[in-house]
Amino acid sequence: MTPKNILLRSEEMPRQWYNVLADIKLNPPLGPDGQPITPESLAPVFPMNLIEQEMSTQRWIDIPEQVLEVLSIWRPAPLIRASGFEQALKTPARIYAKFEGGSPPGSHKPNTAVPQAYYNKVFGIKKLTTETGAGQWGSALAFACSQFGLECKVFMVRISFDQKPYRKAMMQVWGGHCVGSPSTETEAGRKALAADPDNPGSLGIAISEAVEAAVSDGSGQTRYALGSVLNHVMLHQTIIGLEAKKQLAMVGEFPDVIIGCAGGGSNFAGLSFPFILDKMHGRKIAILPVEPQACPSLTRGPFGYDHGDAARYTPLLAMHSLGHNFIPPAIHAGGLRYHGMAPTVSQLAREGLLEPQAVSQLDAYRAGVLWARSEGNIPAPETCNALAQVVREAEKAREEGKQKVILVSFSGHGLLDLAAYEKYFSGHLADAILEEGAIEKAREMLKGHPAPLDLKSL
Amino acid sequence: MTPKNILLRSEEMPRQWYNVLADIKLNPPLGPDGQPITPESLAPVFPMNLIEQEMSTQRWIDIPEQVLEVLSIWRPAPLIRASGFEQALKTPARIYAKFEGGSPPGSHKPNTAVPQAYYNKVFGIKKLTTETGAGQWGSALAFACSQFGLECKVFMVRISFDQKPYRKAMMQVWGGHCVGSPSTETEAGRKALAADPDNPGSLGIAISEAVEAAVSDGSGQTRYALGSVLNHVMLHQTIIGLEAKKQLAMVGEFPDVIIGCAGGGSNFAGLSFPFILDKMHGRKIAILPVEPQACPSLTRGPFGYDHGDAARYTPLLAMHSLGHNFIPPAIHAGGLRYHGMAPTVSQLAREGLLEPQAVSQLDAYRAGVLWARSEGNIPAPETCNALAQVVREAEKAREEGKQKVILVSFSGHGLLDLAAYEKYFSGHLADAILEEGAIEKAREMLKGHPAPLDLKSL
Repeated sequence: MTPKNILLRSEEMPRQWYNVLADIKLNPPLGPDGQPITPESLAPVFPMNLIEQEMSTQRWIDIPEQVLEVLSIWRPAPLIRASGFEQALKTPARIYAKFEGGSPPGSHKPNTAVPQAYYNKVFGIKKLTTETGAGQWGSALAFACSQFGLECKVFMVRISFDQKPYRKAMMQVWGGHCVGSPSTETEAGRKALAADPDNPGSLGIAISEAVEAAVSDGSGQTRYALGSVLNHVMLHQTIIGLEAKKQLAMVGEFPDVIIGCAGGGSNFAGLSFPFILDKMHGRKIAILPVEPQACPSLTRGPFGYDHGDAARYTPLLAMHSLGHNFIPPAIHAGGLRYHGMAPTVSQLAREGLLEPQAVSQLDAYRAGVLWARSEGNIPAPETCNALAQVVREAEKAREEGKQKVILVSFSGHGLLDLAAYEKYFSGHLADAILEEGAIEKAREMLKGHPAPLDLKSL
Repeated sequence: MTPKNILLRSEEMPRQWYNVLADIKLNPPLGPDGQPITPESLAPVFPMNLIEQEMSTQRWIDIPEQVLEVLSIWRPAPLIRASGFEQALKTPARIYAKFEGGSPPGSHKPNTAVPQAYYNKVFGIKKLTTETGAGQWGSALAFACSQFGLECKVFMVRISFDQKPYRKAMMQVWGGHCVGSPSTETEAGRKALAADPDNPGSLGIAISEAVEAAVSDGSGQTRYALGSVLNHVMLHQTIIGLEAKKQLAMVGEFPDVIIGCAGGGSNFAGLSFPFILDKMHGRKIAILPVEPQACPSLTRGPFGYDHGDAARYTPLLAMHSLGHNFIPPAIHAGGLRYHGMAPTVSQLAREGLLEPQAVSQLDAYRAGVLWARSEGNIPAPETCNALAQVVREAEKAREEGKQKVILVSFSGHGLLDLAAYEKYFSGHLADAILEEGAIEKAREMLKGHPAPLDLKSL
């Protein structure tokens, strides 16, 4: 038999993360004065050891032993040869999926939650705050905090808080404290509630609440944690691609196509960044970030300086963006409903090193169900987007008669998203459509901000 | 760092199952005439290749290549060194957990669902029927059927069908067809509905419906599948213990205590049977099946001949039983709410090779939450029962100052049981109490059946 599961032993786990900032140039984040921000200005929000990591240009960064130990609960993660999916698609392509659904909360998010909790802990921090939309990030941080004895406070968008009680229960199991946002606990929350007592909440408001709760805590021992977009988050996620590279080498393979879904960009970056240098050095690899057509920041959003949140608390970041006040249609892949894209991913796309793709919600679920029936694991709605692109590439390989190697990130399982599948089967799931004029609005908004330089890394 | 996760490579997966029937004597199942049943009498219910396996006394049985390939989606499964749990309990014991939560449906059940689907497939069967209570077994069989292109029909106890829509959605994702039981599709179901149109259903009725749907299908290409109790189910599960034994050997360990929760017995048997010969040959191992105090078949139920189902469709099995019409209190560990115990497990207990234990529901959740906070993975309610016993043994080791090695089966994750955790945290979860006189009633009932022989395997 050919085992489907290509496994590394624990001692083969990567001991260093790959830092793409060693190999690309980025426009710096800008403060309210239009000048590049200083490490000191971020100190009330993040611990200094993480701020240093955020700005580091060292190519390889050691993974602390205590972080490796916690990651080893579910890592090294399996690489699955998707022979059943290949057969179902009648493709000559060989498809490999890096399975990130095995972490305790079920997605790739703990790959960064764990080191973030660790670095805060060693810096003397006692409590972390964050926001969460659908709940993946909030539950990952609650898990990570439980491992290092930190308190965890999560502001969860009210509508999800009410609709998804299980994510809330999950955080509670790990000792995390989750409140619906807008809450009465912060100035930002109270203001939002005063304007509309039935406010369903938004990621923008929740970020404002979480940041405020961190910086306004008089103890000085509370900080804020972010689950995507930032450079150190991308860095921590590269363990995905570094492992996958080793596993492919074990079976004598190297990818021709790399596919990952992209919301803020961390899952996609985690899988693909360790292959970027190969591509820069001339290796032919198609690297495809995949987003929903309903929230096409990378495929259709302009590149420019924009805020990371609706309330404009964050610095201006040079990125592809649909505008910081963009409200995406209500698709089920909650992790892909972000208006912007990580500056690192945006820059690589701008330089032509990536080939961004967008898929429809119905195509995503169709691919997800085909995967579950041929490969077993039920993918998260976010992962379904990547699988829809795998279907396209596999069909192209069949038409061209080419034996391509396709590597995809299976970013998380869908066991807490079965209600969405039920809706799909009942025929009540529609393809969400981007509002007319959304792209033009984003262009207008970005014009009001400073213009980033047209950098070339190569 | 000491990695928590002890991993085997795919090529180190066991290639044979261990058959405990080579080493113990069993009282045979009896038909309605009081005589041992013949293979032929089971032929309408199960395919002949599985019936032969059910009756085989060969010690090692080859695992078919195609079964290994599907199992390799998530196997070999990790063995986790529970260093965080040890620290939380301040115990000198070294605790290892065999993690079965990584299968696509999230429990150990697919270890037998996959070979059962395979053997039916090669026998020419096109469709399998089964019952399910909480949904673990039904979803495991739906997954397995999807891997071999079989139809799958699941009769799910009506009250769970209504309360747990996610398990139903899960089966649908895998192409399984799940109906609430009692249904109008069978004579047994219609009869139950005629007596009570609001019948909430029971495992007994659901079994009757599933068996009837299989044997009454005119095509002759439909069979029934059972997820526990039977010998071939125990056989298939031994891959758990065989892997664990190899993994412990890799770190130079051998268990002093083996713990598994036991409902019908398959999870417990899977972990412990591969160590039974060691114990028979004089090795000192405490082997502890753990059940809820609310359903204490092994700790308090008498040993005798009893039916496997309420409707008395099944042969009489020699086992510990609370009586085939016993209705256990509504505890959340649905997989442990079975009136009987596998004949193999019962026989071993009777011969003093096992030391059965019972724990309370609240102790189980307390242990489960402690595990989640110190080790990450959220245990299923069934698994929590085993963990409560681990706590006891770890505390005993601390009191005695002994460096014991404890091996426990982490039979499944609790991501579809978060509502139960929520109830636990809200203080609305009570300790379920066994009805007064239940044990006496069971004794009376078993007296009406033939008496098994007092066999000695050693």
